[in-house]
Amino acid sequence: MSCNTFGRLFRFTTWGESHGPAIGAVVDGVPPGLALSEADIQPFLDRRRPGRSRHTTQRREADRVTILSGTYDGVTTGTPISLLIENTDQRSKDYEAIAEKYRPGHADYSYEAKYGLRDPRGGGRASARETAMRVAAGAIARIVLGRAVRIRGAVVAIGGDAVDRDAWDWDEVARNPLFSPDAAAAARWEAALDAARKSGNSLGAVVEVVAEGVPAGWGAPVYGKLDADLAAAMMSINAAKGVEIGAGFAAARLTGSDNADEMLMGDDGSPRFLSNHAGGILGGISSGQPIVVRTAFKPTSSIRIPRRTITRDGEETEIVTRGRHDPCVGIRGVPVAEAMMAVVLADHFLLHRAQCADVTPPFVVP
Amino acid sequence: MSCNTFGRLFRFTTWGESHGPAIGAVVDGVPPGLALSEADIQPFLDRRRPGRSRHTTQRREADRVTILSGTYDGVTTGTPISLLIENTDQRSKDYEAIAEKYRPGHADYSYEAKYGLRDPRGGGRASARETAMRVAAGAIARIVLGRAVRIRGAVVAIGGDAVDRDAWDWDEVARNPLFSPDAAAAARWEAALDAARKSGNSLGAVVEVVAEGVPAGWGAPVYGKLDADLAAAMMSINAAKGVEIGAGFAAARLTGSDNADEMLMGDDGSPRFLSNHAGGILGGISSGQPIVVRTAFKPTSSIRIPRRTITRDGEETEIVTRGRHDPCVGIRGVPVAEAMMAVVLADHFLLHRAQCADVTPPFVVP
Amino acid sequence: MSCNTFGRLFRFTTWGESHGPAIGAVVDGVPPGLALSEADIQPFLDRRRPGRSRHTTQRREADRVTILSGTYDGVTTGTPISLLIENTDQRSKDYEAIAEKYRPGHADYSYEAKYGLRDPRGGGRASARETAMRVAAGAIARIVLGRAVRIRGAVVAIGGDAVDRDAWDWDEVARNPLFSPDAAAAARWEAALDAARKSGNSLGAVVEVVAEGVPAGWGAPVYGKLDADLAAAMMSINAAKGVEIGAGFAAARLTGSDNADEMLMGDDGSPRFLSNHAGGILGGISSGQPIVVRTAFKPTSSIRIPRRTITRDGEETEIVTRGRHDPCVGIRGVPVAEAMMAVVLADHFLLHRAQCADVTPPFVVP
Amino acid sequence: MSCNTFGRLFRFTTWGESHGPAIGAVVDGVPPGLALSEADIQPFLDRRRPGRSRHTTQRREADRVTILSGTYDGVTTGTPISLLIENTDQRSKDYEAIAEKYRPGHADYSYEAKYGLRDPRGGGRASARETAMRVAAGAIARIVLGRAVRIRGAVVAIGGDAVDRDAWDWDEVARNPLFSPDAAAAARWEAALDAARKSGNSLGAVVEVVAEGVPAGWGAPVYGKLDADLAAAMMSINAAKGVEIGAGFAAARLTGSDNADEMLMGDDGSPRFLSNHAGGILGGISSGQPIVVRTAFKPTSSIRIPRRTITRDGEETEIVTRGRHDPCVGIRGVPVAEAMMAVVLADHFLLHRAQCADVTPPFVVP
Repeated sequence: MSCNTFGRLFRFTTWGESHGPAIGAVVDGVPPGLALSEADIQPFLDRRRPGRSRHTTQRREADRVTILSGTYDGVTTGTPISLLIENTDQRSKDYEAIAEKYRPGHADYSYEAKYGLRDPRGGGRASARETAMRVAAGAIARIVLGRAVRIRGAVVAIGGDAVDRDAWDWDEVARNPLFSPDAAAAARWEAALDAARKSGNSLGAVVEVVAEGVPAGWGAPVYGKLDADLAAAMMSINAAKGVEIGAGFAAARLTGSDNADEMLMGDDGSPRFLSNHAGGILGGISSGQPIVVRTAFKPTSSIRIPRRTITRDGEETEIVTRGRHDPCVGIRGVPVAEAMMAVVLADHFLLHRAQCADVTPPFVVP
Repeated sequence: MSCNTFGRLFRFTTWGESHGPAIGAVVDGVPPGLALSEADIQPFLDRRRPGRSRHTTQRREADRVTILSGTYDGVTTGTPISLLIENTDQRSKDYEAIAEKYRPGHADYSYEAKYGLRDPRGGGRASARETAMRVAAGAIARIVLGRAVRIRGAVVAIGGDAVDRDAWDWDEVARNPLFSPDAAAAARWEAALDAARKSGNSLGAVVEVVAEGVPAGWGAPVYGKLDADLAAAMMSINAAKGVEIGAGFAAARLTGSDNADEMLMGDDGSPRFLSNHAGGILGGISSGQPIVVRTAFKPTSSIRIPRRTITRDGEETEIVTRGRHDPCVGIRGVPVAEAMMAVVLADHFLLHRAQCADVTPPFVVP
Repeated sequence: MSCNTFGRLFRFTTWGESHGPAIGAVVDGVPPGLALSEADIQPFLDRRRPGRSRHTTQRREADRVTILSGTYDGVTTGTPISLLIENTDQRSKDYEAIAEKYRPGHADYSYEAKYGLRDPRGGGRASARETAMRVAAGAIARIVLGRAVRIRGAVVAIGGDAVDRDAWDWDEVARNPLFSPDAAAAARWEAALDAARKSGNSLGAVVEVVAEGVPAGWGAPVYGKLDADLAAAMMSINAAKGVEIGAGFAAARLTGSDNADEMLMGDDGSPRFLSNHAGGILGGISSGQPIVVRTAFKPTSSIRIPRRTITRDGEETEIVTRGRHDPCVGIRGVPVAEAMMAVVLADHFLLHRAQCADVTPPFVVP
Repeated sequence: MSCNTFGRLFRFTTWGESHGPAIGAVVDGVPPGLALSEADIQPFLDRRRPGRSRHTTQRREADRVTILSGTYDGVTTGTPISLLIENTDQRSKDYEAIAEKYRPGHADYSYEAKYGLRDPRGGGRASARETAMRVAAGAIARIVLGRAVRIRGAVVAIGGDAVDRDAWDWDEVARNPLFSPDAAAAARWEAALDAARKSGNSLGAVVEVVAEGVPAGWGAPVYGKLDADLAAAMMSINAAKGVEIGAGFAAARLTGSDNADEMLMGDDGSPRFLSNHAGGILGGISSGQPIVVRTAFKPTSSIRIPRRTITRDGEETEIVTRGRHDPCVGIRGVPVAEAMMAVVLADHFLLHRAQCADVTPPFVVP
């Protein structure tokens, strides 16, 4: 019920504002006996960290995570794990200019309509800074899932310019600052981002996350469907406006015979699918195929191009958002979306074990 | 936590299989003192009812709903409302042929992988028959919301053929059997559906639901976002593969300056937006603009065109699904998606009242 | 969040009023593959059924339960199990006299203060009739727990007259209509109840439930403690006013050295405790000893002795409650309290399996 | 579902071990616009603070609370409030002697049976140190409730020696170190505690908490009953073994005519009750009378009198617990039990407002 909590059994609660003293998370439900230290979390935070290239916000945060509870002698104890990151590079002054105005497309107005007030410094609770704690929780979720499950993400389009899927190279993702699996697309995007930044504008992006090694049987009908939980997880990320599973919206353009993922028997005694339009989920339950989720991120609403808006006092005016902002929030959405995939899967791993630990599936479950 | 329960405060639990004696729902959290009888629910069920045209399954179900609890003298008492619909037109025999085979794209295999067994009659719990109870719960949610909130849905594309938005006419939706707001599109779709049915194939569709009259301020950061809950709600509907809010995936192709919904002051003392790319939701909280959600439905996986598959015993074989199936499940998805919009909004109306009943927003909240 | 739902993973929702057409429950989270039919539930309902002796209400209800979903071929499928009992012996006329008055000690007044209205027929939702569905859910919980866990209850005091614990005989419980483990106490209680009934009065009772065979390790710190959940479970039963675990209130009178349950090694390689003041729960987690819970039931507030009260219109008056009522609700509290023990344990069995399935405890866990 | 989270709408999650770097809580669901600073919380923590008299543990903790999020300009923003207290006086060395042994009556053994390991330093997560965060959350709950609701607690018995209720003086509670409302009892208890401490033993206690000013109508049938939630809240406190509402276990010894709280009309247009055996709760819903809850605390299990026990390796041995422990944990249970009353009431205040904000009750609700 807590609206700042995600998950059922693997469950985390985040807190903190962009310009408060710190941000944090409490991760509950983690099985005991797992090796865990800050070093297991930090690399994921580093991938999301601002200021890594000219294409993301120039705010400089070390994003050093500290574990305050839930481990003993380097091992999880089964009790809640408290994580904390201090905020070190706030420049609240930057926000004075906009404290009295509503940025179009931003949560400024809706927060005030709800709460009657807002913390204007850096977007307060609405800041994408919150996503650092998702990444931290996701790192723990990966440990819960173990090595058999592999979760990877990439940017697949920026500003409507998509990658060439035939050129997909997972190793390339780490080689360019835009998480592109296609070096040529990365080059084009860098140019487009430079142009956008120069003109004070921003671009949208689409992020794809793939989870391999998920066995068949995770997920649950009918309101605990794996895809429903993934949709909520991804849509809860700042700036997300769309989510699709497998073929997604394209599936609505296919015929049933084309969309069907035909099945054969694999050599390993488990089913083998001839395609994966379903994105690894059938009836809300994993099929053993890779789970594929794409999320659409709108362009950042904090731009330097003047836009018409109103003030808190109801005056019509123009707004220009200076400060330090990502020209394309979707880029740093990759580690965040990966993390949300991880937490959903960890949750369903535990849920499945609770209800179905005794089940013998009909086949070798992949 | 119950995976067959949806919502936080306005909360319903559904039960029942396609070919069991009945299906039902328990709706909890409804405010007391609201006039409610079966007559308030039945019209919504009738819109979803199978067999209304040649374009939906020919199963004949009266879908008569009975209220078994939670009202007294025609008024809600604040206690749980139990709803029941008897199944009357099961033809379980139809399913004998497929009980031992997995339909590609269907939940047959994933259910067995999870539970070790399944009820093969009509898809059991995975049947779209469950959605009747969503529609019933949605009818109650509408009463909770009151008349100020208006929720309408339409099919906006079938098989990749989209409506002409300039020809949009809400009144047309009720005049054709395909819930199309564009009469010309409806005519084209009927032809396409006839062709698909004749060839034993099926088509996908996209459904759009719009909620008007939702005041600014509903929804909650960061994991109780209105759009995150809507995404889960829509993605939990059978055959849904994608969800988008407002401009959705198209927003990822816009620049920040184009995507910004600029604001002026309206004559009524509340903000006026010059566009609605946001689909009425900013930072997870309603902005007072219409809330716009689109859901992509894949084509039905139960088709008469033979597909390769395997049997429960691991034999490779072919499958042809006879029985009575919707050639395009998206059509009947309209009343279901409307219902899911209604239940999400009713839930957030109550959540908002709980936390923020005392708040004075900065403007007249639209 | 639903206030008519109990449990986290083994989870049930009840609905229905005393004089509505039916009462029911939806039990969710049950593992698949368990043999289940009405015959597994009915015997427990029969133990709770009204009218079995002159010491309980004379309302005649067959309390025939029907399973409407969640099983196939006599086996659970993992989907929600819907249970329904028709009400057959309502005499709503009995309540006309009291519809306008508040029975002291009854929920009449508090329901109206909350909801502005109430269903006066038989107490509506506040009726102990609801507990039939707890018993049904409890029967399913026992199947989830399996035979290793044995749950038994008894009345240990009526009207302040307690059993002789040295004379405790579990077999005696089934031989007298008052669920007494002490035949002599049963005889005394029958006389006391006859006198109370004759004078139009009622008596309170204390019920003890013992669960044997629960392994060490179930339960969870700090708000999911096994004893906290049991306390909520028991206190939610109609007329319950107190709950204690193990030595309970008496522990507050002991010294630490007397209260300590000293430990030795048992022959079976698991710890052996020399006493059980803790009632089988340490730090909210089961210790492997029998779990012992006692619940105090107040005397029925529906009595024939006139009491001063007020009317809905604010007039002072007297009230005499005729109709059919249990002179001692605690008696039929035995099967209900057993059921609540069962549902709490089934829930914690699944919770423990989710988080700790991989744990190797230091000893053979009893 | 998170077992370290309490509440539905007013909801807090605690984390931290006795000898970790810090303990903390995240409080979610707090209405916006309430004045809140550390100074509103600290006085309640000071009442619970160890080392205030010779009758509590001599561990010296400043227990300085810091608010890390959820406020802006001294006012709540509606976002989660993160609270942190640093641990400063750990003496983990004290625990080396017992790390390999199980203290009888303590959670040592059950934690290891559950998790396969434990943090032995100061009891780890099982330490009563966690209750500091309950007190902090309770302080915020009091602000949510406002001044109309007054919550006070007292020790009513230590070691079986009860207060004289005719001598009850709420002002006395603050004057003696034992939270006794009866000065004479306080004097007797001090002597008894000195004797217990000298002999290395410990004593149990009973704590009573009373909430005045709660309007009729809070609480909800049937599993969200106010008394059921209070029972869980109190039983979740370390060392609690029993909970009762109003007359509690004594009600089981009364007749229905004696137990009935007769009603008249009060001068203020609201009902007036002639007694309060119900403890202010009828059918799980508040009646407008004071809410009265008593909790039994067992004597501390960490004592210096040798007790037989076993080691982690299964060897039989003796144990003597040195270190710094409360000889009577019930004493410091007073601010904790008050806090749990406050959080339950704040939660039900919000729940009631969500569902029933529009209700007009039949009378002036007290």
